[in-house]
Amino acid sequence: MAFDQTNILDRPGESLDHDETDGLISSEKVDGTAVYNRQGERLGSIHHLMVGKRDGRVRYAVMNFGGILGIGERYHPLPWDVLTYDTDMGGYSVDLDKERLEGAPSFERGQEPAYDRVYAERIGGFYGRI
Amino acid sequence: MAFDQTNILDRPGESLDHDETDGLISSEKVDGTAVYNRQGERLGSIHHLMVGKRDGRVRYAVMNFGGILGIGERYHPLPWDVLTYDTDMGGYSVDLDKERLEGAPSFERGQEPAYDRVYAERIGGFYGRI
Repeated sequence: MAFDQTNILDRPGESLDHDETDGLISSEKVDGTAVYNRQGERLGSIHHLMVGKRDGRVRYAVMNFGGILGIGERYHPLPWDVLTYDTDMGGYSVDLDKERLEGAPSFERGQEPAYDRVYAERIGGFYGRI
Repeated sequence: MAFDQTNILDRPGESLDHDETDGLISSEKVDGTAVYNRQGERLGSIHHLMVGKRDGRVRYAVMNFGGILGIGERYHPLPWDVLTYDTDMGGYSVDLDKERLEGAPSFERGQEPAYDRVYAERIGGFYGRI
């Protein structure tokens, strides 16, 4: 698995709020933060994190977008390490154009995936992180 | 660092909601969950998680309690692995009596700790996890 130099939530040069330090960030602050692609198009925002119960490792930052009052919303689990923080945009940046996003693994509310090994490989394969 | 057999958010035998699988749980579901001690006294509830920006590892589950409308509330960062899930109680269980809790590292809103190495050692020392 490859890691970027600047990883998710890395905000160099930006002054830090109380809910953030150099190394750590609050789950409160992550949720709701916008996600853009490299073309500067807004793809959605982080809705929640999926955390490993035993090891406490964040497996996915789940982005959502679309829908009205929750109907028709789609959720896209993104591997933690595909997201970088863009201080200019004020949100996370991911290398994913809109067309490719349409083919990305996603689900609707109430139809959550099993998040098992098969699903992890599917996500990893799509985002080139296996 | 010692790990319990059953770790935080481990809910054996309980039917799983959509926001939870055998191995993963949503940050949405963790937040707000009650924390009890071994005597069954309610200590507070999980308010948010502090996550390592680079490695995506949850360092602390921050429990809060007390106060009215946010005034006087105290926040206690707990190491992820001191919490176990108690299906009977419907909340997390931690081996911490109320007297000892009073001496535990804590902070008020707006006075968040640096969460640096010194603080990590203090937390680890208090909870016997170094």
